[in-house]
Amino acid sequence: MEAFSDGVIAILITVMVLDLRIPHGTTWSALTDSAPVFLSYVLSFVYLGIYWNNHHHMLMATDRVSGLVLWANLHLLFWLSLIPFTTGWMGENEFAATPAAVYGIVLLAAAVAYFVLRSAIIRVQGNRSTLAIAVGRDLKGKISPVLYAIGIGFAAVNRWLSLAVYVAVALMWLVPDRRVERTLGAFSRR
Amino acid sequence: MEAFSDGVIAILITVMVLDLRIPHGTTWSALTDSAPVFLSYVLSFVYLGIYWNNHHHMLMATDRVSGLVLWANLHLLFWLSLIPFTTGWMGENEFAATPAAVYGIVLLAAAVAYFVLRSAIIRVQGNRSTLAIAVGRDLKGKISPVLYAIGIGFAAVNRWLSLAVYVAVALMWLVPDRRVERTLGAFSRR
Amino acid sequence: MEAFSDGVIAILITVMVLDLRIPHGTTWSALTDSAPVFLSYVLSFVYLGIYWNNHHHMLMATDRVSGLVLWANLHLLFWLSLIPFTTGWMGENEFAATPAAVYGIVLLAAAVAYFVLRSAIIRVQGNRSTLAIAVGRDLKGKISPVLYAIGIGFAAVNRWLSLAVYVAVALMWLVPDRRVERTLGAFSRR
Amino acid sequence: MEAFSDGVIAILITVMVLDLRIPHGTTWSALTDSAPVFLSYVLSFVYLGIYWNNHHHMLMATDRVSGLVLWANLHLLFWLSLIPFTTGWMGENEFAATPAAVYGIVLLAAAVAYFVLRSAIIRVQGNRSTLAIAVGRDLKGKISPVLYAIGIGFAAVNRWLSLAVYVAVALMWLVPDRRVERTLGAFSRR
Repeated sequence: MEAFSDGVIAILITVMVLDLRIPHGTTWSALTDSAPVFLSYVLSFVYLGIYWNNHHHMLMATDRVSGLVLWANLHLLFWLSLIPFTTGWMGENEFAATPAAVYGIVLLAAAVAYFVLRSAIIRVQGNRSTLAIAVGRDLKGKISPVLYAIGIGFAAVNRWLSLAVYVAVALMWLVPDRRVERTLGAFSRR
Repeated sequence: MEAFSDGVIAILITVMVLDLRIPHGTTWSALTDSAPVFLSYVLSFVYLGIYWNNHHHMLMATDRVSGLVLWANLHLLFWLSLIPFTTGWMGENEFAATPAAVYGIVLLAAAVAYFVLRSAIIRVQGNRSTLAIAVGRDLKGKISPVLYAIGIGFAAVNRWLSLAVYVAVALMWLVPDRRVERTLGAFSRR
Repeated sequence: MEAFSDGVIAILITVMVLDLRIPHGTTWSALTDSAPVFLSYVLSFVYLGIYWNNHHHMLMATDRVSGLVLWANLHLLFWLSLIPFTTGWMGENEFAATPAAVYGIVLLAAAVAYFVLRSAIIRVQGNRSTLAIAVGRDLKGKISPVLYAIGIGFAAVNRWLSLAVYVAVALMWLVPDRRVERTLGAFSRR
Repeated sequence: MEAFSDGVIAILITVMVLDLRIPHGTTWSALTDSAPVFLSYVLSFVYLGIYWNNHHHMLMATDRVSGLVLWANLHLLFWLSLIPFTTGWMGENEFAATPAAVYGIVLLAAAVAYFVLRSAIIRVQGNRSTLAIAVGRDLKGKISPVLYAIGIGFAAVNRWLSLAVYVAVALMWLVPDRRVERTLGAFSRR
């Protein structure tokens, strides 16, 4: 399951690069024309990186899975698989209202799917498992969906506000999540 | 063999996302125009998820392979590899008769290939192996090809009937296959 | 190295599917129009399957690698990576002379690269290693390059002769290579 | 982390093949028209091969990672993920000034990211670790960024000079990096 998930996320993160269309012309301005596409790419790269990172840590602390967990995992991968699509749509239309809202909806759905997956894993592992303890109150996990919803609302008002919220959530997660790591201690290479 | 198969299925499931072309325009209606493409994507995502899931369980209960098994496995992957193609064709033509029939034919061929692969594995493992016992009567496995054939027939009559059959088979499999799992008990993370 | 190679071959085998362009129209004749593309796809799928299979068996019998082996491996992957390109070119032009010759040249180069890789591995492993013994006289490995060369020559004369040679070589290899397998005995799932 | 990185690099190396557009026409000259695209492909294939090779050796000598290392790794993968894009842009425009400079900038950024990643790993592993000793003075690692910078500067003057520098750096690295290997001795297949 870990290898498969890592594979899917690895492919998603690189498939996005295919939406970076080769610019027409060979000037610097031809390159800067694709700046919105590039910015969307960077943002989604960071988001997929965060998901990979957290997912990786979570499975580190998981030693048993069930059929339900496998499907909860596929459900998460489904929403993540839509990120390249929404990234391309948003980037090519310079963060227009609808694409920016749809981008937020996919992020929101992925956050919910991640929460569902974690709950399913904790149910299999038990409440006293390393994971259950490591997760604790999970402030970030609770704030994120609220912020995504705000970002989606902002899309109709001002695209840059909306984008700012998405960037802020990404930055919030970039600060490494020390909870699981601290509980597990330094962990092995694999 | 497991890593390679997982890799191929992971790539197939994400390659389909490339057929979700970025809509022209930035309105909600531009998005809903691609609804048939999106629905085909969801259906095929679920099918590939089912195959990955069952394939994963099957290899869990497999500890010896032969040259024949490797080729039976590649044969299954071949039919699965045609799913993105038929998905795109069916989605872009709003489930027209021929694409819908071809979609069913590929599903049918994949089901047969899966049956062949499992038989090859059981032959190597022996009739008293965990897998042979876990599989048992395999009602679902026997009904599915019949249903696919019905779906293919319906395609000429009414595309929605055809689609309904494909969705029904997917739902039937989504109910987790507890047979192997029950026999194996809770299994390890990898 | 095994995981990386498996990954690259898995991606190549599925990337080819992207060259199966969705047909225009929804009729059966729209589908049969892409028959040459489809046939090229099947042929290359089988070739990549053969390479994966043999490569997999070879690494099974390998327990030490060197920097040279890593590069010999990348060299093989390089030629294999050109297969989707030549497959598409040949298929879209209905096996025209030049694309059919180029297809054979890539197959020839891959065969040479495979031979170089195996020699590099045997040099690290030693002449008394399982692999060195299992390989033995390697008739198939010696005939294949000759046949590819004949196929390339035929391309200028008659495209179907050329294609027939490529198909014949593939069939020759499809007969499972029992040499290594017999020496190793039944091998483990991974 | 190793599997994920291997996956991403494997995908990048094969995604580039998608930029090898199928030539129009079936003549040899149709093929030679895509020579610049092909040459860029070969160069980038070698670069990604070098990165995979060195990255692989580095992780061989790593047994502990931290959150910082995971992100430093993603940072490196980010710059590597831009290689297919810049390769395609440079190849399709026959090594024009701006694309050739941008190609060098991405190589330079990747080199810096690799240095940052290695420093992060050494900090976790300790100064007396195998890796820290194996790396030693790292002449190549220090010269490369300087050469990339020279290559970027040359792009404005003469595209071929610029390209020559990039090729020279690749050749410099192709000479196998015996430092880590010597320290580790012959290493295991995985």
